[in-house]
Amino acid sequence: MIHFNSDYLEGAHPKVLQALVDTNMEQTIGYGEDPYCARARKKIKAALQAPQADVHFLVGGTQTNTTVIASVLRPYQGVLSAVSGHINCHETGAIESTGHKVITLPTSDGKITARQIADYVDWHRNDESVEHIVYPGMVYISFPTEGGTLYTKAELQEIYDTCRRCGLYLFIDGARLGYALAADACDLTLSDLPSLCDVMYIGGTKVGLLFGEAVVIFNDALKKGFRPIMKQRGAMIAKGRLLGVQFDALFTDDLYTKIARNAIDMAHQIRDIFVSNGYPLLFDSPTNQQYPILPDAELAILGKDFGYEYWQRVDETHSGVRFCASWATTQEQVDALRQAVNALHNR
Amino acid sequence: MIHFNSDYLEGAHPKVLQALVDTNMEQTIGYGEDPYCARARKKIKAALQAPQADVHFLVGGTQTNTTVIASVLRPYQGVLSAVSGHINCHETGAIESTGHKVITLPTSDGKITARQIADYVDWHRNDESVEHIVYPGMVYISFPTEGGTLYTKAELQEIYDTCRRCGLYLFIDGARLGYALAADACDLTLSDLPSLCDVMYIGGTKVGLLFGEAVVIFNDALKKGFRPIMKQRGAMIAKGRLLGVQFDALFTDDLYTKIARNAIDMAHQIRDIFVSNGYPLLFDSPTNQQYPILPDAELAILGKDFGYEYWQRVDETHSGVRFCASWATTQEQVDALRQAVNALHNR
Amino acid sequence: MIHFNSDYLEGAHPKVLQALVDTNMEQTIGYGEDPYCARARKKIKAALQAPQADVHFLVGGTQTNTTVIASVLRPYQGVLSAVSGHINCHETGAIESTGHKVITLPTSDGKITARQIADYVDWHRNDESVEHIVYPGMVYISFPTEGGTLYTKAELQEIYDTCRRCGLYLFIDGARLGYALAADACDLTLSDLPSLCDVMYIGGTKVGLLFGEAVVIFNDALKKGFRPIMKQRGAMIAKGRLLGVQFDALFTDDLYTKIARNAIDMAHQIRDIFVSNGYPLLFDSPTNQQYPILPDAELAILGKDFGYEYWQRVDETHSGVRFCASWATTQEQVDALRQAVNALHNR
Amino acid sequence: MIHFNSDYLEGAHPKVLQALVDTNMEQTIGYGEDPYCARARKKIKAALQAPQADVHFLVGGTQTNTTVIASVLRPYQGVLSAVSGHINCHETGAIESTGHKVITLPTSDGKITARQIADYVDWHRNDESVEHIVYPGMVYISFPTEGGTLYTKAELQEIYDTCRRCGLYLFIDGARLGYALAADACDLTLSDLPSLCDVMYIGGTKVGLLFGEAVVIFNDALKKGFRPIMKQRGAMIAKGRLLGVQFDALFTDDLYTKIARNAIDMAHQIRDIFVSNGYPLLFDSPTNQQYPILPDAELAILGKDFGYEYWQRVDETHSGVRFCASWATTQEQVDALRQAVNALHNR
Repeated sequence: MIHFNSDYLEGAHPKVLQALVDTNMEQTIGYGEDPYCARARKKIKAALQAPQADVHFLVGGTQTNTTVIASVLRPYQGVLSAVSGHINCHETGAIESTGHKVITLPTSDGKITARQIADYVDWHRNDESVEHIVYPGMVYISFPTEGGTLYTKAELQEIYDTCRRCGLYLFIDGARLGYALAADACDLTLSDLPSLCDVMYIGGTKVGLLFGEAVVIFNDALKKGFRPIMKQRGAMIAKGRLLGVQFDALFTDDLYTKIARNAIDMAHQIRDIFVSNGYPLLFDSPTNQQYPILPDAELAILGKDFGYEYWQRVDETHSGVRFCASWATTQEQVDALRQAVNALHNR
Repeated sequence: MIHFNSDYLEGAHPKVLQALVDTNMEQTIGYGEDPYCARARKKIKAALQAPQADVHFLVGGTQTNTTVIASVLRPYQGVLSAVSGHINCHETGAIESTGHKVITLPTSDGKITARQIADYVDWHRNDESVEHIVYPGMVYISFPTEGGTLYTKAELQEIYDTCRRCGLYLFIDGARLGYALAADACDLTLSDLPSLCDVMYIGGTKVGLLFGEAVVIFNDALKKGFRPIMKQRGAMIAKGRLLGVQFDALFTDDLYTKIARNAIDMAHQIRDIFVSNGYPLLFDSPTNQQYPILPDAELAILGKDFGYEYWQRVDETHSGVRFCASWATTQEQVDALRQAVNALHNR
Repeated sequence: MIHFNSDYLEGAHPKVLQALVDTNMEQTIGYGEDPYCARARKKIKAALQAPQADVHFLVGGTQTNTTVIASVLRPYQGVLSAVSGHINCHETGAIESTGHKVITLPTSDGKITARQIADYVDWHRNDESVEHIVYPGMVYISFPTEGGTLYTKAELQEIYDTCRRCGLYLFIDGARLGYALAADACDLTLSDLPSLCDVMYIGGTKVGLLFGEAVVIFNDALKKGFRPIMKQRGAMIAKGRLLGVQFDALFTDDLYTKIARNAIDMAHQIRDIFVSNGYPLLFDSPTNQQYPILPDAELAILGKDFGYEYWQRVDETHSGVRFCASWATTQEQVDALRQAVNALHNR
Repeated sequence: MIHFNSDYLEGAHPKVLQALVDTNMEQTIGYGEDPYCARARKKIKAALQAPQADVHFLVGGTQTNTTVIASVLRPYQGVLSAVSGHINCHETGAIESTGHKVITLPTSDGKITARQIADYVDWHRNDESVEHIVYPGMVYISFPTEGGTLYTKAELQEIYDTCRRCGLYLFIDGARLGYALAADACDLTLSDLPSLCDVMYIGGTKVGLLFGEAVVIFNDALKKGFRPIMKQRGAMIAKGRLLGVQFDALFTDDLYTKIARNAIDMAHQIRDIFVSNGYPLLFDSPTNQQYPILPDAELAILGKDFGYEYWQRVDETHSGVRFCASWATTQEQVDALRQAVNALHNR
């Protein structure tokens, strides 16, 4: 059985794991104030060319989204998100559990537009019942999106300009950021991001670490009190250096970029496996997540040897599913998939 | 200027106000444990033919919806509601502020169906990511709905049967319940409700009181701890007898039904004023809220002498608006409206 | 049976009630944007000599404390309060329900000192685990306190100076403010308060209204977003004009001060009734709440004809209890108490 | 520099780390549903002799306390805790952030008694204002306590009997449970715990793991919905198998007990180092945390070479501090401390 269900199926990249092994018996103080966290912060700020940014290390994605959003909003405010956004669909109401509504905008491919944001703000401001309607306080987008799609630099710039004009903060969920930046279709780099949002996070769990997400706060107005909020939300782990050691390794010798590139190469092949056999795609994804549409009967056969994630029903006999590549995906795994799909198609 | 904007424009029905005047200098203990509250509870339970019910008096609608929903749900659960439901649109995220997501179901006229509820539950249960998706814990409907429409007894029965089969509680928001029961199209009475839901409230603010909503809990499982939750949410007022005195008056000599009937009579005339002049309706409402569609130019003229509530844009030159009648609406007010609309139409 | 249990036993002062009767059938728009609320706001700001203040009308005390505190604090902050503070003891965890800890300071008479506040802030700032301990964000005091005691102007000034120096907001709970200002021992007036705190409320429920508390925000930094938070917390009632009409009447011809004075006169007599008969006092209260200590056996006898509130056990055979006077207390009621206590003492 | 500040200074026990290395490139499904978690659950239930228990793996202590308590309480309830309890002092208001008050009981050594619990419940039930006071819903104790002290089996039994009689759930925070069970003074074993509480957790972070706490729910009434609450609170990590792999190793060949014993042996020596040199102790701790009292001048000297945690001021020239041993503490480290303290004393 070979699994393509997700990008968190294995442990850590060997170099990251080795760093944990090498430092295991060292003594350091806790809660992220150790030298490894300091070094990792420095490297991340250098990679972003954002020396004034604050960098904090958290454990997982839901925790990170919740902590950031709860730290930004006032009680009467909500967060604008694509209806398909992770915070709206897959976090068991974590945002609402902090008292805030997720205000949803429609989308077909996971992306939202500057125009949608501006229109919502205009409508809200001009509604007679404005005080009876949740105020938009920030915008949440993910890059890449849940559908694996990417914003262009121009689109991001327009969204951020709109946010600033409307008094909204912009937060970019970068759980899979590495797989965006490594994609051929991506027209921006890590160092473009500080001028394109107020706060973001660089996901480690899905790109080479055992676990870990690095929140980067660019906007000074959002920096105050983040550490006590982390602690309150259980996001400040005792052995904080585990995160520092891992991110330090990930941002050494450009490991982050290199291992993300493997995922893109493998994802291209996966895409080609399905497209060349005539299967349509649910989304046109340039990143590590691919969404072919298959007949249910063929999925049943394929599912005996290959793990994938069910995404959505397309019609009575077809479904869209997700095949993920990651830093850990091997050529052998993809070759096995190719052979199986070819055989399936030529039954 | 005559206002038809809403059904909370005046104070209290004269008999209700007189009861407050008559009892003003009496001394009673606070927080709803006085003899007037006891008497009002008794009358409400008699009217509902629900001797085992618990009755609590709260001040306003948002407070009541929030208190009931927060008292019913577990932290990981949300409440199913029509997307147009008051709790989703007009309470500034009050439900979310208690940690719970409002899970929305589409609707064209404010109503949802048993089938929609069952489908949602089925989907949730069978989704691979069930634990990552907010669990439905209860269903919220309003009777009448935000569009003034009514569920039939059979529809309510089917919804409640579905809720019980699916392990969901059913909560009926009766902010305008009196105007539902008084409508010709309504095929149920107050005493049908105990077998059609777990908890409901009888709205007083819009039907004759200065303020006040009577929560009625039928299901024993929901009775425990409601008073401390009321207190915690600021819903237990010191001079609780003010609510008892008012509801006592409202449920004496069937005042509640009689004054609601006036609203229906006036609303029928309002409807006729517009329909007979050829204006279409946004919703086909049998209750006290009427929703004619008018050209914007004519609305501007009408708005000089008559208050209405803007509801939604229909096309570039037409809007749907709301005209409300209430227990306080007079024949003179409606006659003035008729004259104005006739004139408008015959310009 | 004559009740001295509390100061919310009767309805409204006759002039206030008459104002409600006089305006009952008028049509006004809702949610506090009517002319009566405007007029009441103007009169309150005039009385405070605070033309720049924001004034909002809410229904009850718990609701008001919760709304104000939730609107001021960031998620990681708590509110400093005397351990006997109303928010700590008698609101069923309402503050905590909004996510904030009540940080308690010891007190013997309900008052806290500037020094206690400064010491707490110093300790917190210098603790190694500062990020693991709730941050103080504001200070809550009540004037008069739960023990009926008063801060002097100098004490309040010192507390507020300390708050400003430490970056804390100061909130004064004025549920019984009128009874403080009317006391002989009070060395400040309404117009002193704008320079002694950031936000306060003028309680109406206990001083002449059916219900109602007027929040006054002096500090510009706390003004934004208060109305949507009110709505979210169920504190913005539909017929908002009921609050405007009442406060308008209460601040006409100095009614607020005059009726509060009656309570003080009656309380002095109550105090004298007990002291002259040799009963000690639990607190030395110059306001409308008096706390004599009586043998339990005598309390049992007195309790047959007079209502009082049990406060605390003093020793095995004695208890401290509360007798309240209010705007509504009559000379006849007090005379009856005097006769009974004299008789009790001379058994 | 040798650190005795805490028991989370190093990484994981070598056998635990090796298990992570050995399984690193395996593919498993996420969120705790993998075979390693299954195996670890089985071993933990066997060690507890509690085959019916539910076992869940979370990341850290604050997260675990918050998730458990939020899953148990109703909105109007709070949790009883020693005033020195971790949830009251060192979690930045995490419990309050979920809406619940921590109700504190006084303590001198970190322990509370069955009598204190019963007295609180009695007082609450009999108070006139019962509905205005937070209801106790559960009791939180830690074993060992913050002061390193232990409850006897009889004390725990009495506490749990009291809880059951009063309708309260009992939760044992076992962040350092291993160090309690390994202590000579401990008169109970792991398998006694299922009959002594409703829910507990076995701490891994401080006893041999990189991170990880195992919640064990014995009471069926508390089992429902725990996984979605974990997810909502960010406590369900993607690569859940990291926790399974670690706990599997920790509960293989009794590793948990063996490594905890090392901490006790070293702590005994640390205690002896101070006592034999005439230094008094703040608490009489039989576990891995030792609390000697030293002159500030000597602490300053010692602090140049040895890390300790400042605990509290004793008098103007003396302080109580904490020295922790752990599974990782070596004889060499302790010998160095002995030499230094002897030298200090013989200056």
